[in-house]
Order: sequence, then structure tokens, then C-alpha cells
Amino acid sequence: MDSTGQSKVRVGMVGGGDGAFIGEVHRQAMRLDGLIELVCGAFSRDPGNNNRSGAVLHLEPGRCYDAWETLLAAEQARPMDQRMELLAIVTPNHLHAPIAEAALRAGFHVFSEKPAALSLADMQALAATQADSGRLYGLAHTYQGYPMVWQARHMVQTGTLGRLRKIFVEYPQGWLSEDLAGQGNKQATWRDEPAKAGPSGCMGDIGIHAFNLAEFVSGQRIERLCADLGVHVAGRQLDDDGAVLFRTDGGASGVLVASQVCTGEENGLTLRLYGERGGLDWRQEEPNSLVHRPLGEALRVLRAGVDQRWLCDEALRRLRLPAGHPEGYLEAMANLYTDFATSIRLGRTPEVPGVAAGLRGMAFIETVVASHHGANKWTTLAVTER
Amino acid sequence: MDSTGQSKVRVGMVGGGDGAFIGEVHRQAMRLDGLIELVCGAFSRDPGNNNRSGAVLHLEPGRCYDAWETLLAAEQARPMDQRMELLAIVTPNHLHAPIAEAALRAGFHVFSEKPAALSLADMQALAATQADSGRLYGLAHTYQGYPMVWQARHMVQTGTLGRLRKIFVEYPQGWLSEDLAGQGNKQATWRDEPAKAGPSGCMGDIGIHAFNLAEFVSGQRIERLCADLGVHVAGRQLDDDGAVLFRTDGGASGVLVASQVCTGEENGLTLRLYGERGGLDWRQEEPNSLVHRPLGEALRVLRAGVDQRWLCDEALRRLRLPAGHPEGYLEAMANLYTDFATSIRLGRTPEVPGVAAGLRGMAFIETVVASHHGANKWTTLAVTER
Amino acid sequence: MDSTGQSKVRVGMVGGGDGAFIGEVHRQAMRLDGLIELVCGAFSRDPGNNNRSGAVLHLEPGRCYDAWETLLAAEQARPMDQRMELLAIVTPNHLHAPIAEAALRAGFHVFSEKPAALSLADMQALAATQADSGRLYGLAHTYQGYPMVWQARHMVQTGTLGRLRKIFVEYPQGWLSEDLAGQGNKQATWRDEPAKAGPSGCMGDIGIHAFNLAEFVSGQRIERLCADLGVHVAGRQLDDDGAVLFRTDGGASGVLVASQVCTGEENGLTLRLYGERGGLDWRQEEPNSLVHRPLGEALRVLRAGVDQRWLCDEALRRLRLPAGHPEGYLEAMANLYTDFATSIRLGRTPEVPGVAAGLRGMAFIETVVASHHGANKWTTLAVTER
Amino acid sequence: MDSTGQSKVRVGMVGGGDGAFIGEVHRQAMRLDGLIELVCGAFSRDPGNNNRSGAVLHLEPGRCYDAWETLLAAEQARPMDQRMELLAIVTPNHLHAPIAEAALRAGFHVFSEKPAALSLADMQALAATQADSGRLYGLAHTYQGYPMVWQARHMVQTGTLGRLRKIFVEYPQGWLSEDLAGQGNKQATWRDEPAKAGPSGCMGDIGIHAFNLAEFVSGQRIERLCADLGVHVAGRQLDDDGAVLFRTDGGASGVLVASQVCTGEENGLTLRLYGERGGLDWRQEEPNSLVHRPLGEALRVLRAGVDQRWLCDEALRRLRLPAGHPEGYLEAMANLYTDFATSIRLGRTPEVPGVAAGLRGMAFIETVVASHHGANKWTTLAVTER
Repeated sequence: MDSTGQSKVRVGMVGGGDGAFIGEVHRQAMRLDGLIELVCGAFSRDPGNNNRSGAVLHLEPGRCYDAWETLLAAEQARPMDQRMELLAIVTPNHLHAPIAEAALRAGFHVFSEKPAALSLADMQALAATQADSGRLYGLAHTYQGYPMVWQARHMVQTGTLGRLRKIFVEYPQGWLSEDLAGQGNKQATWRDEPAKAGPSGCMGDIGIHAFNLAEFVSGQRIERLCADLGVHVAGRQLDDDGAVLFRTDGGASGVLVASQVCTGEENGLTLRLYGERGGLDWRQEEPNSLVHRPLGEALRVLRAGVDQRWLCDEALRRLRLPAGHPEGYLEAMANLYTDFATSIRLGRTPEVPGVAAGLRGMAFIETVVASHHGANKWTTLAVTER
Repeated sequence: MDSTGQSKVRVGMVGGGDGAFIGEVHRQAMRLDGLIELVCGAFSRDPGNNNRSGAVLHLEPGRCYDAWETLLAAEQARPMDQRMELLAIVTPNHLHAPIAEAALRAGFHVFSEKPAALSLADMQALAATQADSGRLYGLAHTYQGYPMVWQARHMVQTGTLGRLRKIFVEYPQGWLSEDLAGQGNKQATWRDEPAKAGPSGCMGDIGIHAFNLAEFVSGQRIERLCADLGVHVAGRQLDDDGAVLFRTDGGASGVLVASQVCTGEENGLTLRLYGERGGLDWRQEEPNSLVHRPLGEALRVLRAGVDQRWLCDEALRRLRLPAGHPEGYLEAMANLYTDFATSIRLGRTPEVPGVAAGLRGMAFIETVVASHHGANKWTTLAVTER
Repeated sequence: MDSTGQSKVRVGMVGGGDGAFIGEVHRQAMRLDGLIELVCGAFSRDPGNNNRSGAVLHLEPGRCYDAWETLLAAEQARPMDQRMELLAIVTPNHLHAPIAEAALRAGFHVFSEKPAALSLADMQALAATQADSGRLYGLAHTYQGYPMVWQARHMVQTGTLGRLRKIFVEYPQGWLSEDLAGQGNKQATWRDEPAKAGPSGCMGDIGIHAFNLAEFVSGQRIERLCADLGVHVAGRQLDDDGAVLFRTDGGASGVLVASQVCTGEENGLTLRLYGERGGLDWRQEEPNSLVHRPLGEALRVLRAGVDQRWLCDEALRRLRLPAGHPEGYLEAMANLYTDFATSIRLGRTPEVPGVAAGLRGMAFIETVVASHHGANKWTTLAVTER
Repeated sequence: MDSTGQSKVRVGMVGGGDGAFIGEVHRQAMRLDGLIELVCGAFSRDPGNNNRSGAVLHLEPGRCYDAWETLLAAEQARPMDQRMELLAIVTPNHLHAPIAEAALRAGFHVFSEKPAALSLADMQALAATQADSGRLYGLAHTYQGYPMVWQARHMVQTGTLGRLRKIFVEYPQGWLSEDLAGQGNKQATWRDEPAKAGPSGCMGDIGIHAFNLAEFVSGQRIERLCADLGVHVAGRQLDDDGAVLFRTDGGASGVLVASQVCTGEENGLTLRLYGERGGLDWRQEEPNSLVHRPLGEALRVLRAGVDQRWLCDEALRRLRLPAGHPEGYLEAMANLYTDFATSIRLGRTPEVPGVAAGLRGMAFIETVVASHHGANKWTTLAVTER
């Protein structure tokens, strides 16, 4: 990993109080490489929870704020060399864009959970704000932090597979097989409220990860698609499942599946690519292996490890351990944070997904929902990226 | 395995001369359980190949015929207790239905390679002939011969998964990633000629297996679908790849993928089902395992073996060996032949796919091709089965 | 597979009546390639069982004999072109050598279940008889019939691994975790009687397979060993478990494990070899894959299939199907029978394990038992092979 | 994870400068849960390296010491509420015990890399010092930090497997297949010098991990053993490979294998246990799965995840993420540090391996070496633990 030797990047967090899942994940990821210091937060609207979180995290007492608006104002008022530099947004979906907009306007860099916004229009507004702000904006497409995802992308880019023909990406989960929201599960509840989650449930929550991964690794863009969404548990408002046929601008076709009612599945994000000269297969649940099927040769299993000299630089830079010492999800997210923090210090552009990925993602969600409701086979996915 | 103690069933074969792949596979499958005797054949239009095949197979000299028409006539002329009883058809696709029709009319039972015909109309005619003939008709959907496929079906039928929600079936192969027909490969060549292969290449060749497996195990019928076919190798007339979204009459939705350009894949037929109470996962390349994901419990791997007493009768009857002694493709096909031969002897109905499967399969192929060319999202798959 | 076009080899069988396991396995293996005809048998000392078996197998009535002695005498009396040529011995262990001796003396070829005898001395006598007889002798070390075992051997022989350093072979089973003999299980009962099974239980039953596989693939001989045997179920007379450290004549060292109390294991024979330039890993329960770990390169998975042109001839000759169509245990045993039958017809030496393997195997069993009872670390394994 | 809300534990480090492998691993593990602050260090005898390390790690300038002796003295001189509390020792082996002794005497808690000492006698002295000091002592047997290792131990302790019969533990690596020390590799060089590494190479480096894991999970102690060590690369002084037969005080027998010449293997620590009522199988390279083979039932795969409610408390407490989000080696080591730091704060006994594990480990190494050189089959492994 890079080590700048410079001072730690000062980070604040909105959301992530006690009982939230992803906030503590972000905090662990921030800590891993020692380049980031959490200096302030507004963790919960519940004052008790908020203060408890601040205490556990050893924040200075005055920097555990009761609301994100207060946080932004108070940090802006601090001296330049002490104030928060980067805001991490780990709230439910509907707050991502408003907080990001305000933070960018206030001069802070932003690292946000996905989806970036509730609509493409909101995302376009956010994109404009970000462009004007001169601040960095990153999105927690955590799976892009895995070293072997970069290895796969590198092999596609350098022609190992030849021209791509097929892209299969799937993201099966099983945790919504039962009516958890009806049972009061907090994670499940807001994800099924359109005002908080956006126009799609499953596709907005995990389909967007699959979409992002497919476009990132293939280097191609999905141009048109045909979607079929489902609601499999009575009482749900938003899709808990869906499948999408698609064609890309590079001449490939494929299938994207995302489902939260695949009973017994855990977090089975899987990407398979096939080209004229070979295939690749990566599974998030065993992220340290990348299966390569070269045309006319025996299958190879590329394994992660800092000592695997045939890996590309992009993969090696994201690894910490020799082969056989498994690295996982937290390390993947730490890779995003480390790249982002280092980029802030060095004034360079991070390799973390940002505004363009946010625009693509929101366009994907809206196009999928439109396709699902339409009678035509194909719906165009178009977005002007900056 | 059943043992009737009765005389062996006398079988003839059309096709399967030297250089053909599937004919020898059928012959090995026929032999395995010792219930069948190959008594005659018309293996090739090439007299040298035909005679060579007959000699290697120890046929009586006079029963290696120069053409299937001759075979039928000559065998009909033999005494009842010596003549062929069952005709196995292992020719290219376009001959399946004509030979089957003639054989049934001549009073022989028929076991045919898939697809059953070149069109649904032809299959409907064949179905009528079969009904009038009183003879048995079977189709070589070999994957239905695997014991763990029957175990999966049993678990669905008996409610282990609860109501089914999702069906994913895929059949990736890679052998047509290159232009083998252009290189003179016999197997590849006829498969790309519509007059010999039918209206679809990949879907007619392997998509139909995936379709059959999905309907067989789920016990549900695909009612409507949306297909996208592809031709990825220049010069090809027929699809070498395709994907299908579908909905079933039981309220499930799913995806069917079949492709012959998944470079590096071998014969990766895979079926995954998810219901309210669990999921199942079966992969043809490791056919002796069936993964069961019960809701709220640890994943289980059900393994094949005559000593696995928790397997259902339908699975146990199709097994020969104790757990840990792998059984494979030849044993699966032998299971079809053994059931068929025993049924002939005992006058019972075989559990082998027959006319109904043939009708469904041809309707599937035609509906997929129609959907691919249409602009509407959904196309109905309807067929009147007898 | 070879096809001689010549007449089928006429085989008789001793043992393998109703309720026996391995006899029917041999018969299926004999049938698969159509080169062998079962013409006679003495299947059981129980006349009812014996006659029932003969009827089910469609033997000529007069050729289902009441005892192996009768069988040998009667077949010897038949005309040369009708009599049995090869005797398959599938009885409990203590009868293997006496029947084999008598059959060889009577002019028949012999294919015997393992272990070849109850003692090394008996095996040496048998070896002398066989040498005098001019008849062929084969041993059912079935795992040598797997194509990928030959591929592994080929890679060792041709130097792909460099000089071998480590050999690990293990054969865990779990079926004797409970006292099956006490429950009347026929397979378990005789295996625990020294007069029928020999001086070792587990090592004689499956350790010998592991030993044979290790020596066959490595091309090296175990020169000295240190054994620790165990009896884990009360009341058992013979070992149900054991482990062996060893050194070979080629400078490698290793470990052999065989156990029948590895609860839950099925038939987990596994061989791993490591040399200066790479490693190999083969597992019988997934026999169509061979893992190759080349020094300094990514792991490769060599897969079985007649279309895998990088496989060696010895492997390709033992395959029937294209990649992705699993072949299993029955095909492995059929490979032994086919080679043996073809060798009889063509007058060539079969590649099936024979007298030398029998001598090595018996020496192994006796050395292991001696080492277990001794106080010295190392015991020499020496045998003069012919 | 526990959160004390109390101040962070102040840690110093000896060793782990630029170019060292394990030091940075420890530092990442320390950071992950935010309970530990690195306040001082003596990272390298090379002043440039040492100062560079201190700067990158944002230490106060005066707390990057030129030697561990200086560090101890200077920290002892600081006020109680600022001084280092815990010393992490990540030097080559020969310094572990001397530094630990000195640090305990100076009133600091110690967390040391393994092996704890160069000899059992040294370890016994260290044990006495620790007892007198009233300070905590922990050993970096990192694999004990994996949640599924605790799950396995729990299942053994609560009788899920019944009485244990067999214990197989192996630790194959391949990185010393070539003469890396001869090529100047720093990690390989000191590991082959008896004065720095101790009396054993491979067994002292990784065999000790295998030993620790086997005893920890089984809850049994190895009482006697028979070892065969090897040196497979010319020029090496210490063993690079070995295998051990053993018997335990609980009536189980087993095999321990450790090797660094298993070409192509990465870090394949694997533990398999078999008892009267079931078996378990855990592999470090896929640490989030634990295979359970219950007697007479289908195999189960227990998967890690905070939402897997059938896991035991000991496992759940060591998990951070829901099922399907892989946790790895760094999280395992972080679990050791977090337990140790929390125990310091709360004045409780940590569950981290300590003096007893150190004594057992040193006795193991010495017994293995003695057994290897002896002519007797069995050598007793005895040690008086405090």
C-alpha cells in the first residue's frame, strides 16, 4: 500500500449509529491502513445513540453533532488544518444526494454509500454541483476494491480474452426470503419504502452493484436492456428480485440477475465474461481466486497475493498479504478509502467510482424500472456523463 | 437396478457409424445393465463405414443394413421372437421424426435423440402416429437419467422448498467459440444447417436440454418468455448463443441461458431453484452432489450413493454404487435405456421423457425463435399435449 | 477405445451372487465396451442365490456351477473355442489366491480382486504358478483405470514435476465408524475375520489401494516405513485405521493414511505429489480433474475429455466422452477389463496391475503390520519381484 | 465486537521495519477495531529504516527508538497514563524471549510472535518471569483468531462429534521449494540459521501452528509422537519439511504434516477431526466455511456471518460481517489484538494463546527434533505447564 508519510485525512461520518450495519464497516475500513482519522460525526437522529457512538469512537465531545446540517456548519467554522476534510455518508438512500450536495458546497470531499441519489435527475444535479465544487466525490461500490476485480479488468483491457462476447453477472441473496420488514427488521424496512429507497428495491440495492461491476470489468456500457422484476413476498412495495437481458456498446450481450429471495444464498455476486480467446469467472464469496479459461488450454486459477508476480500492478497495489492469507470485504473497502485519502493528500484523481458511476447507476435503475413496466422488448439506457 | 430375468430386448440403431459421437455413447449405455442386445443397424450411408461398424459390433452379417428403410422392412419380415423390438435413432436432427414415424408405423418402439423433430407441426404429427401405434416412444434427454435430478424433483414435489419462486437454468459450452464448421468439423457442420438442424442452433441443440430439465425438476411449465439469441462467429447461419427470461404457470420466474461460445466451458448444465423454504443447486459436471439450502439452516450437500438412505426411491433406483464412487454421464443414459427396456418387457409406462417432452421442446424452440425476432417483450409458449 | 473386431472374450466369475457388492460392479464394467461375454459362473455357495444369479444373467443353464472347482473342471472339458478364457475372482480375500492358482494351472487367465493373497508367501507361490502357466494375471486396482491417474503418471515420468520430494496419499472412508459387523452387515463381517481378510483390516482393504496408487503414479518404490494402526470400534479384531510414514527409493518421503472410521467420508482416495518444479493433486471423488501447480505459475486444472488434446495418449485411450461429460468408477474398471480382454485377444501384455503389484501389495501389508508391532522407527519393505 | 468506550490501549512495537512482512500485518490488525494506538517503536537496527518507519506511522518523534532496550527504559520513564502498556514483538525468533522477559520485568504486557523462545528451557524461564510479573502474555497463533476455529472447538467440546478418534492437521507451503536464502531473500535467510530460528526450520515456523491448532480445537494433548523431518533443498541447515504420527491423551491418533517444499501450495493449513458421531474439516484458505459431516446424515457447510444464529457465541463474537462477506487473515489477527487489548482494559484473562501454548509449542519442537534423530518409534512429549 502507498504510504504518504503525510498527516492523516480527517473524516466525518453521517449515519452509522448503533444498530446500523454499514457504518461500522466503513469505520473499520477507514482504520485499516492508518491514513484516516475519524474526527466528527452525526451518527443518529436519536441523541442517546448518537452520543454513545461518539463516545465509543473516542471523538472529541464537541464533534459529535446532533444533525448533519450542524456538522457541516460547525466543521466549516473550524480552522482549515483541523476541520473535517472528507464526509462519509452512510445513511439510508434518500439522504445520500442532499447531504452530498450540501457537503460539496461547503467545500468538503464526499464518499457516499450507493445508490448516489434517488433519481437520475437528482444525480445530474449532484454531478453539476460536484463539478463546480472542485471537490472529490466517491461511491462505495465496494466490490471494485477487490484486487482480483482489477486483475480481471486488466486482462480484458490488455486483450487476454479477445473481443468480449458474453457478460453474465448475478447477485443472489436470500435474506429477504421472509418478510423481515413485517418483523420489524430495520435494514429491511427502509429498503422497501420508495421515499427512502428509491424507485427500485433489489435492483437499487444490489442490482446496481452487479451493473457497476459488469461495466467496470468489461470496459463496455450497457446500451439497451429488457428487464423483468418481481415481488415475491406479499406486502412488499418494491421489487425483491429481477433479471435483465442486455446488449453493450462493444457488441457483447449478457444477463444480469439480482435477487434477494434466493433462499439460502448469502452474498453471491458473481461475474463471468467470455471472449473470443478465453473466459473469466470471479465470485465475491471467494474473492482471492480468479478463474481463467484460455481458449484451447487448461483452466487456470489466478490467486491473490503480494508474491504472485504475474498479477498486474493494479491488483498488487490493492493486496496486503502473501498468497494463501485470505483478504476479504473489509480489505476491499479499505482499498477504496486508502485510494481516496491518498488522492486527497496528493491532489490526484482517485480510482474510486465517482460521479460517472453515479450517473450510470441511476440511469440503470430508472431504465430497468421503465423496461419492466413497458411492453417493448428493448429499452435504451442512455446518460450523458460529464 | 431392476432385473427382469427375462430375455434381452432386441435393439436396432440408425446412425452412429464411425466418427459419430453419440452413437457409441448410446451403445455403451445399452450394454451397461445387460438388458439389451444390439441386433441390427444402419449406421452410415457410407457402405464401408456401415459394414465396418457392423463387424466391430459383432452383428449378424445380414442385419447390417444399407439404409433405415431397408432395416425397417427386413426386420418386420423376421419372426416375431427374433426381430428388432426397439429402434434407437442417433442421426442428425432432420431425420429423427421421419424415421420415428416410419418405425412406429412398422410396429417398433422408438428411442430417439433430441430434438424430436424439426418443427412443432412435425412433432404433432409424430405424436398422433405414436398414439395410434400403441408403441413406446422415448427421447434422449440424458440429464433426466441422473439420480440427483430425480432427488431434486422429489424434493420439489414433496414441498421441501415450499412454493417455487425462482428457476435458473444454464447450459454453457465453449466448443463453438471457434469456427469449427469452417474447419470441416462434422459435428459442427450439420448443426449449422437449418435443413438438418432446424430453426435454431444452440437453443435446438442444448437450450432444449436446459428447458426440459427446468420443467422436469420444477414440475412447472414455462408459459411466456422473452428471448435474445446471438450469432457470435462470422458466417454462421444459426444462433450459437441465447438467453431467455420466463414466467411459469406456477408463479415462478427465471432465466434460461444456453451458449456454445462460452470459451473454456465444457458441458456446464446447471439448475438452481429457490422457493419459500429453501434452494437447490445441481451441476451436471459434478452430478453426484446436490446442494440444498434450507431456509435458516446450514447448507447441506446431498451426495449420491446406494447407501445414502435419505435419498428418495427414484434416486436410489438409478444408482449402482455406494457413495464416493462417482457415476457419470454413461450411467445416466443407461438409466434411460434400462427403464425403457424394462418397461417394454413389463408392459408398463417408462419414466423416460416421451411425446409430451417432444411437444414441449419443439414449442420451446419455435417460441424462442419467434420471440427473438419480435419486438414485444413477452411471447406465449403454448402447446396442446396429448 | 480399441476395437478389435474379433470375437468377444469369454469370461467366468466366482463370487458375486445376490447381495454381494463388487460382483455386479465387475459385470457392468465387463459389459461396457462390448468386448467380453460372461459365459459361466459360480456365484454363491447358496444354491438358490447361485441359480437366481445365473438366470438373471442369462447364462446357459449348465454353466451356472455349484462351486469354483466344478466350474474349472467343467469349462476345461469344453471345446477350446467355447470354453471360458478368463476367470474373474470376486470372492472374499482368503479365496483369491487358491482359486487363482487353480485357474492358472487349468489354463485360464485370471482377473482377481485385491488383495491378491492372504500373505506374501502365498503370493510368491502364486507368482511362480503364473510364470509357469503362461497365462495372464490381473488385479482389480480399479483406481489405476482412471484416465487422469495415467495423466499424472505421465507428467511425473516426463519430468513435469522435476525430482519428486513429497508423496501424500490418503484413503479415508467412514463406513466402519459404527459396528456394522455386530449389526450383521455381510461386507463388514468377513473383513474383520483374519482367516478371511488376512493380517490387516483397513490396510489390507484400502491401504493397499493407496499404496498401489502412490507407487504407480510416482514410479518410485517405498523402501522403508513406520506404521501406526488403530482399532477404534470395540470388538474389532483387525485394524480399522492406520497411518504410515515412508521413504522411497527415489529420495522422496511421504505419508500414507487409510482409515475406515473417518465418519462421514465416503471414498476419499487422494494423491498429492510435489516435486522440484511443481505439484499434482488428484481426488478419486472428482476423478475428471487433475490439479497441476507449476512452480512460479498459476495453478492449472487439467480436465478429462477425449477432446482435450493436451492430455497424454495413455489418458486419452481410457476416455470415452468429451470434456464435461463425467466418467466415473465403472468406466475406470471397464478400462481395466477392456485392456485385459484386448491383450488376451492380441497376445500382448496388459497395462493392468498384475503379479508385481500383487507382490508389492502383500509385502506392504506385512511390513505395515510388522512395523506397527515393532518398537523401531523404520521397517524395511523389501520384495523380490520377478 | 466488544466496545469498551475506554481509552485506547497504548502499544509499542519491536521489529517490523520496512521490508519486514509480519510487522505491518500486526499494525493493520491493531488498527482494525480502533481500540489500540501505536505510540512507540524500535522497528529496525538500521537507523534510516527505523526513522522512516516511525515517520510513516505518525509516531511522536521522540518515541521512535534506536533499540528495544532504549524503548523499554524510555517508556518506563514516562508518566503512567502516557507510557506504552503493551509491547508487540515481531522480530526474528531468537529475540522473542529475551525481549519478552525484559518487557515483562519492566512492567509491560507482551504480545509476541511465535515461536515464544528458542528452547523449552528458555520458555520455562519466561513462564516464571511472567508469573512473577503479573503482566499478560500473548502469542500470535493467528489461526486461533478465526471464528470458525472457535466454532469447531465448540462443537468438539459440546460433543457434536462424540469421542474423537482421528486428528489430521497439515500445513503445506511451497515458498521454500527453491533456494530463496541463496538468492538473498531476507525472510528465508534467518529462518535457516539455527542461532536465529531455533532447532527446527519448518516445524518451528509452521509446524508449531499446526500443533497449536490441533490441540486447541481438539482440546486434547499430544502425548507421544514419531517424526520424520526432511531437508529437500541442498545447502539448507534446518528442516524444510516434516511429518509426525501422534497419539493424544484423549485416545485419538493422528498425523501432522508441515512442509515448505510443497511446490505451488500457498498457506494450506487444514484441520480435520473425526469422532464417533461426526467429522469436521476446516481450511485456512477458505476460512469462512466449516464442513461438518454428521454420522448418517448429509454433509453440512457451516458458514461464517454475524447473522448465522446457529453459530456459537465464541464464533459470533469474532465476526464483523453478515454471511457472504468474506473475512480473512487480518480479521483473525485483529481478533487476537482486540481480545488482548480489551482484557488489559477490563483486567480479565484474554482468550489469546499465552504461556501454556508457548510451553507446549517449545516442547513440541524439541520432541519432534529428538524423535527425528532417534531410532525408537515413539518419543514422549511432556511438559509441565503452569
